[in-house]
Amino acid sequence: MNPPPNITDPLVLFMPSGKRGRFPIGTPILDAARQLGVYVESVCGGRATCGRCQIEVQEGNFAKHKIVSSLEHISPKGPKEERYERVRGLPEGRRLSCSATVQGDLVVDVPQDTVINAQVVRKAASDRVIERNPAIQLCYVEVEEPDMHKPLGDLDRLRLALEKEWGWKNLLIAPHLVPQLQGILRKGNWAVTAAIHRDAGASRPFIVALWPGLKNEAYGIACDIGSTTIAMHLVSLLSGRVAASSGTSNPQIRFGEDLMSRVSYVMMNPDGREAMTKAVREAVNGLIGKVCEEGNANRDDILDCVFVANPIMHHLFLGIDPTELGQAPFALAVSSALQYWAHDIDIEVNRGARLYTLPCIAGHVGADAAGATLSEGPYRQDKMMLLVDVGTNAEIVLGNRNRVVAASSPTGPAFEGAEISGGQRAAPGAIERVRIDPETLEPKFRVIGVDKWSDEPDFEEAVGAVGVTGICGSAIIEVVAEMYLSGIISEDGVIDGELSARSPRIFQDGRTYSYLLRDGEPRLVITQRDVRAIQLAKAALYAGVKLLMEKQGVDHVDMIRFAGAFGSFIDPKYAMVLGLIPDCDLAEVKAVGNASGTGAMMALLNRDHRREIEDAVHRIEKIETALEPHFQQIFIDAMALPNKVDPFPNLALAVNLPPRQANSEEKTASGEAAPRRRSREERAARRERG
Amino acid sequence: MNPPPNITDPLVLFMPSGKRGRFPIGTPILDAARQLGVYVESVCGGRATCGRCQIEVQEGNFAKHKIVSSLEHISPKGPKEERYERVRGLPEGRRLSCSATVQGDLVVDVPQDTVINAQVVRKAASDRVIERNPAIQLCYVEVEEPDMHKPLGDLDRLRLALEKEWGWKNLLIAPHLVPQLQGILRKGNWAVTAAIHRDAGASRPFIVALWPGLKNEAYGIACDIGSTTIAMHLVSLLSGRVAASSGTSNPQIRFGEDLMSRVSYVMMNPDGREAMTKAVREAVNGLIGKVCEEGNANRDDILDCVFVANPIMHHLFLGIDPTELGQAPFALAVSSALQYWAHDIDIEVNRGARLYTLPCIAGHVGADAAGATLSEGPYRQDKMMLLVDVGTNAEIVLGNRNRVVAASSPTGPAFEGAEISGGQRAAPGAIERVRIDPETLEPKFRVIGVDKWSDEPDFEEAVGAVGVTGICGSAIIEVVAEMYLSGIISEDGVIDGELSARSPRIFQDGRTYSYLLRDGEPRLVITQRDVRAIQLAKAALYAGVKLLMEKQGVDHVDMIRFAGAFGSFIDPKYAMVLGLIPDCDLAEVKAVGNASGTGAMMALLNRDHRREIEDAVHRIEKIETALEPHFQQIFIDAMALPNKVDPFPNLALAVNLPPRQANSEEKTASGEAAPRRRSREERAARRERG
Repeated sequence: MNPPPNITDPLVLFMPSGKRGRFPIGTPILDAARQLGVYVESVCGGRATCGRCQIEVQEGNFAKHKIVSSLEHISPKGPKEERYERVRGLPEGRRLSCSATVQGDLVVDVPQDTVINAQVVRKAASDRVIERNPAIQLCYVEVEEPDMHKPLGDLDRLRLALEKEWGWKNLLIAPHLVPQLQGILRKGNWAVTAAIHRDAGASRPFIVALWPGLKNEAYGIACDIGSTTIAMHLVSLLSGRVAASSGTSNPQIRFGEDLMSRVSYVMMNPDGREAMTKAVREAVNGLIGKVCEEGNANRDDILDCVFVANPIMHHLFLGIDPTELGQAPFALAVSSALQYWAHDIDIEVNRGARLYTLPCIAGHVGADAAGATLSEGPYRQDKMMLLVDVGTNAEIVLGNRNRVVAASSPTGPAFEGAEISGGQRAAPGAIERVRIDPETLEPKFRVIGVDKWSDEPDFEEAVGAVGVTGICGSAIIEVVAEMYLSGIISEDGVIDGELSARSPRIFQDGRTYSYLLRDGEPRLVITQRDVRAIQLAKAALYAGVKLLMEKQGVDHVDMIRFAGAFGSFIDPKYAMVLGLIPDCDLAEVKAVGNASGTGAMMALLNRDHRREIEDAVHRIEKIETALEPHFQQIFIDAMALPNKVDPFPNLALAVNLPPRQANSEEKTASGEAAPRRRSREERAARRERG
Repeated sequence: MNPPPNITDPLVLFMPSGKRGRFPIGTPILDAARQLGVYVESVCGGRATCGRCQIEVQEGNFAKHKIVSSLEHISPKGPKEERYERVRGLPEGRRLSCSATVQGDLVVDVPQDTVINAQVVRKAASDRVIERNPAIQLCYVEVEEPDMHKPLGDLDRLRLALEKEWGWKNLLIAPHLVPQLQGILRKGNWAVTAAIHRDAGASRPFIVALWPGLKNEAYGIACDIGSTTIAMHLVSLLSGRVAASSGTSNPQIRFGEDLMSRVSYVMMNPDGREAMTKAVREAVNGLIGKVCEEGNANRDDILDCVFVANPIMHHLFLGIDPTELGQAPFALAVSSALQYWAHDIDIEVNRGARLYTLPCIAGHVGADAAGATLSEGPYRQDKMMLLVDVGTNAEIVLGNRNRVVAASSPTGPAFEGAEISGGQRAAPGAIERVRIDPETLEPKFRVIGVDKWSDEPDFEEAVGAVGVTGICGSAIIEVVAEMYLSGIISEDGVIDGELSARSPRIFQDGRTYSYLLRDGEPRLVITQRDVRAIQLAKAALYAGVKLLMEKQGVDHVDMIRFAGAFGSFIDPKYAMVLGLIPDCDLAEVKAVGNASGTGAMMALLNRDHRREIEDAVHRIEKIETALEPHFQQIFIDAMALPNKVDPFPNLALAVNLPPRQANSEEKTASGEAAPRRRSREERAARRERG
């Protein structure tokens, strides 16, 4: 229908997509964008009333693109646009692309309000923009009035208008709207806004909601259902603006602290599955209310929902019995992405809202891992990326553009502070940082919510009423790593009882030795058992990573991304000292916060990201670590600090590591240390056996 | 994928479709059918266990097709087919087309059990076969068991099996099945039967139901919701067999006898719409129970539902306020066909069952008229067909292959026995046939359920306890026509008071005269008012027909089809004497019973018929009779018996019509009669004005 572009026509470049093309003078910018497949929102269909199609002209000489872009290359504001500016206001530099036309070469910026930044992610890897192309589109139309000579129904005339003005053909309609049609059309005096859902993964395009007149807002939610916490973003589908982000604890905790105890609850209680499904859906509905209140939005304006979750949460949320996931072969009821009406599973938003769940990667690598994978995109780059989400079950993804492999490791709850004598969840009063003086063996620490270290003069005052209550996950990593660095524990994790002579902080505690981190109330002690628990957890994680590295045929990784709350707080250096993760340039180890939630938001705002992650997950190779024949050996090697056999050259540059003991090469290199350590180890082993 | 057919390959012709093609020796007949697009059912996927793919070889020399078909040209029964025959039995001559292979030229009959015959239609126009191609297909598959090395979910392995064995790609699944998947797959030991719904008018193909093991039956219902009666067929989707047909009265009658009074009820009562929707859905659900009991079927095995109804019933059934249909411009909320989940509107069948409503033609020409149009297919032929469904509102369709026009006429309830002094619904005891001796003016009649005429000796005995209770629609037509033929009423419908001298049956009755049809209890009289009511009703119908004929530019029609219960009972000859319908060869006037229901069944059994009627309705031109400028004149001319101006040459050959009065040509031709009649008319008019 469009004439072929002429080489003398102006060149228009759209940012951030970088798409470009030539268009005759007078072409509306909105039309140019559409022809190039650049998504620019528009609800009113070019009537200059919704204001959603705003763009900005970037002025300057863009030598790289051979474009000199100038404000003189866009038409001046016409009466419609001026009226909009007068009535609704238009920020400096912004133009309505439905009204502004091409008059010369242009670089056009399509503002994307969704920036993944500090608001969303605690420690952002980088500010990243999500280009929008949501599954929901609002379309304002003026419908022909009924006419006795052309007895088409109201719906059919609405469809005609949507086809004529927006190009939609053969639209389906959500059945609940059928009885409401007449009233809405008449209330709007035959002008209505239809919400259209179109997503290649779903059925044909559907009319899912309908309002009289111009409806100029639509929201979506992106939600990550964790075992402990449910996190949600409320996002404008029209601008990409994050209206609110919030979280709530998962009420299923009352049925069982960790995933496996919840599976057991289902197995032991006839109504267990139903009760847990109800609980999590109610919590999600409550959280929707919370983000709506915070974001000053109406839950009826939520038209699309994207969910990620670990496999057991995923199944329970969808009403599926998770029992199969608790036993080999860990069969998922469904691994692919699903498309529902939100109403199908009792999510209380607009009656016509859609719901999308990201695919699960494997029985223990869920849609949350898929979300993190979409967010961090190992498959989008050449570097070998290790992506780890540490929880009770660590989900591990390793790969690059060529190949991605994934696995899970049963790390257990030690990293979350459970099974540790003084452990607790990250909360005010919990110790989060620990340092031990290698000479005096004296510790200092910091607690959550307090800036000062414990050795600073007015620390106790600063801690105040909250007090020091326990040790959270990040501090457990640090204290064990510091104990190792200061020689309190050996490479094999044995607390050296001989040091009790040097410091009263090392003391005999039954058959083994312990380290006194803090005297007082509560008295916080690191026991041999605590060290062993951390060793087991980190060895499980490291063994999983190592097996994936072997699958990839690499002996190192280029970058490491820690996803999840735990990852946000741990210091990469200490994680590496502990041997939780393989050696890597420390500058390339980053926490990415709730990457699963970010992935959910990407899938919410751009349906292309849904296809992207569906395709990526389809290609990811899943490794069942327990089935690998030498898992046992790798696990045993990984029990040592940082590892019995693997080198940590990058770490050695940053930290003064104790000399290695068991490695035969090292034995000859540092002949003295080895015997001393061995004998100490033997003594410790005797003590433990004793 | 298939090699191109070789000219020396055997030729296979499938009946009744007539599709033909050449296939290599050894090709399974089922494969040959599929390659030609001939629909042959198969649930088990060629395992020779479901027995649904039966065919018959027609032996003989089919010179027209140049095929000599012989039982020797099909492979002998193999072990699988023999096992099936042994265990389940195979009728004489039947073969399983999945096992039997092409060995030479063949004429293959695909048995179609759905024959539209006396069981379905009281007076069948012809025995007609509905070729099956239903929207629901049952597919048996054996699914791979879960495997830790390939962590695809249960659903995803089911999808893979359905793709591999049946060619389904990217199947969606009904959300309610997701939680049930695991249990069904394990119960069936990884062998399951999936019901797939695929219909171009709906969304993408969906898995709508799932059973462990081989499921070898699926039903559908075709339902016509009339204002008075709801009629339903229960049909096997696998064989086309009509398992049961039944009806029930529409409980909405308690809200209003006719359509307009129901619309009024909605307008006057805030919960009126809801109450009527609930009532009709409950009645449909009750009727489903009834047909299931009669057909020995389980309502959970019903997977597809097709509904037709007049516009007001259609709207009320779907929960739409019908108020707009009660006033100009008579705007339908929706005119196109709709696709729902049956569950969406509370129809109690399988939870995954689908529901399809035929399109409505116009504000007063509903999905029932569309059903009748699909059944009779004026657009499929060259002859000009008039299709009339007489009810309170007559729906009229006129056309042929080139063009179809439609209209409705407000005939009122006279034809149904209402507004007539002795009128009643067709039921035992109602007079259904009337003859009047033109010499003696004595009547004789027959009542429903009794074979004898009233003048036969043991009539009273035969009538027995039921007695004679009133006059039903068909008899009202006949008695008025007979009164006209015997000269009791004039061409203008005036009862000739002078005849009271000849017979006591004509007697003064207030200001006008009446005719005594039956003395006794009850005393049945045809009053001047009754005659006028019939005249008004028939004139309305005829005027509508006439306007459509003018639109078509024809002065006669080639064939007439009466749809609906009323049409089944009236005698075409008397309808024509009355001038209810235009002149036509009497042999070409036929009653087709509940053609709407037949159309619904066609759409149920073959989704191609859905596209056919959607397309046909889209092309039908709708005429709003009341807006035509000369409707008034046509209506007035149609008040006369049979008509003031239109000739009835075919009728004149069959019936001795009284000479025409008012036509100027006739006046000169039969100068004597005209003045006499005119004077009689004037007298009658004086009396009426009196």
